[in-house]
Amino acid sequence: MPEIRIVVVGAKYEGNVGAIARSMANFDVKELYLVNPCELGDDAYRRSKHGSQILDDVHIVTSFEEAVKGCFLVVGTSGVTTKGDRNYTRVPVPVREFAEHCRGYDEKIAIVFGREDIGLLQDELNMCDVLITIPSGEEYPILNLSHAANVVMYEFFQAEHTYRRPEPADREEKERMFDFFSDLMDAIDYPKTRREMTRVMFRRMMGRAIPTKYEYNTIMGVFGDASKIIRYGKSWEKKDE
Amino acid sequence: MPEIRIVVVGAKYEGNVGAIARSMANFDVKELYLVNPCELGDDAYRRSKHGSQILDDVHIVTSFEEAVKGCFLVVGTSGVTTKGDRNYTRVPVPVREFAEHCRGYDEKIAIVFGREDIGLLQDELNMCDVLITIPSGEEYPILNLSHAANVVMYEFFQAEHTYRRPEPADREEKERMFDFFSDLMDAIDYPKTRREMTRVMFRRMMGRAIPTKYEYNTIMGVFGDASKIIRYGKSWEKKDE
Repeated sequence: MPEIRIVVVGAKYEGNVGAIARSMANFDVKELYLVNPCELGDDAYRRSKHGSQILDDVHIVTSFEEAVKGCFLVVGTSGVTTKGDRNYTRVPVPVREFAEHCRGYDEKIAIVFGREDIGLLQDELNMCDVLITIPSGEEYPILNLSHAANVVMYEFFQAEHTYRRPEPADREEKERMFDFFSDLMDAIDYPKTRREMTRVMFRRMMGRAIPTKYEYNTIMGVFGDASKIIRYGKSWEKKDE
Repeated sequence: MPEIRIVVVGAKYEGNVGAIARSMANFDVKELYLVNPCELGDDAYRRSKHGSQILDDVHIVTSFEEAVKGCFLVVGTSGVTTKGDRNYTRVPVPVREFAEHCRGYDEKIAIVFGREDIGLLQDELNMCDVLITIPSGEEYPILNLSHAANVVMYEFFQAEHTYRRPEPADREEKERMFDFFSDLMDAIDYPKTRREMTRVMFRRMMGRAIPTKYEYNTIMGVFGDASKIIRYGKSWEKKDE
């Protein structure tokens, strides 16, 4: 995963800076550079929650150049995207595509956010190697600053982390489950002409649900007990114990 | 795209509700239901920005059941995910996977968010058809409420909208560009032994960059002029005008 430095130019509300620090803690991003920000006080710390260390370590600088120094790539963010292709300085890449494109690099990347009201100025945009955007509705595409930063960090995090899935039931277990389901249909005298269809339907449902081993075991318990109780009565339960 | 209803249970901070309304406006989501929320005042409206209409139209109800009435599917959100597979009531699906899975449905889906501090209670989680989660860092996985809602709406929006790309230069245009590049190498007496390699390198770079028609035209202008000026001197420029 590229090492990410978050740069905010001219932040006006300390609450937003605090919220960005929290998002950074949520997505394992450490470095925060602020170019000529507002003062950071109680509100910033209150909103940073467990990200307060990031505020303690913040780098406050007075120029864009200082903020991106040492970074391999400077990535600008812009909520205003152009319709025409002519203003190429404003043609951005969707954030997901860019984050996936960066997968595997481990250089440091500066991701630069602009002011809450007017974003990045043209000369600041021109210093960026690439522009990214968060695709959103046409009527009101401008996200809150900290929400935008959060989505960008979320995307970089997703690009690098695969989700640990609960272990699914394997093929044999599933076949056993389908047999137990058939046995249950048998026990309830389900119409013979419809059994095969219903068996396939159940198989399809499980195909979509991808049951975990735990779910498999639970369902097997239910089907198994149901079949036995229908066949031998509730007394079976006691006999077996 | 499924019609989305955002449900927030027991919101404590009106600022979060306002920020959620803004995100809804950003991602074209209309319906907001609040179960026993805090009072909504100036701070909510201030943070909603152009989403204030959503606050005007908010449905305030007193129970979970009322809030999800009429919805085809009830989707719970949980920042706390379980490590083991055993507590199946807490095994969630990553939000991206779920949003992509819902693509093409047009039924109404309730997405339910819990309180800022303790989230959804167990009996509320049990009323959900499916749980989704936002994969985040292990050390501090709990996102701010409005940030979480924003990411979820962002994902549903991405699942339905493809990004309009600037029209790329076509195959013939690119070949012409490679020819102009070769011509430029010729004009500067670039070492003959390295020309082919450098030509391929330039082709590869353009393969990754996928230039737009506008970029193509601009680059062609630069290469063409450079070759001519090198060959015929600056006077060429004037002659041609």
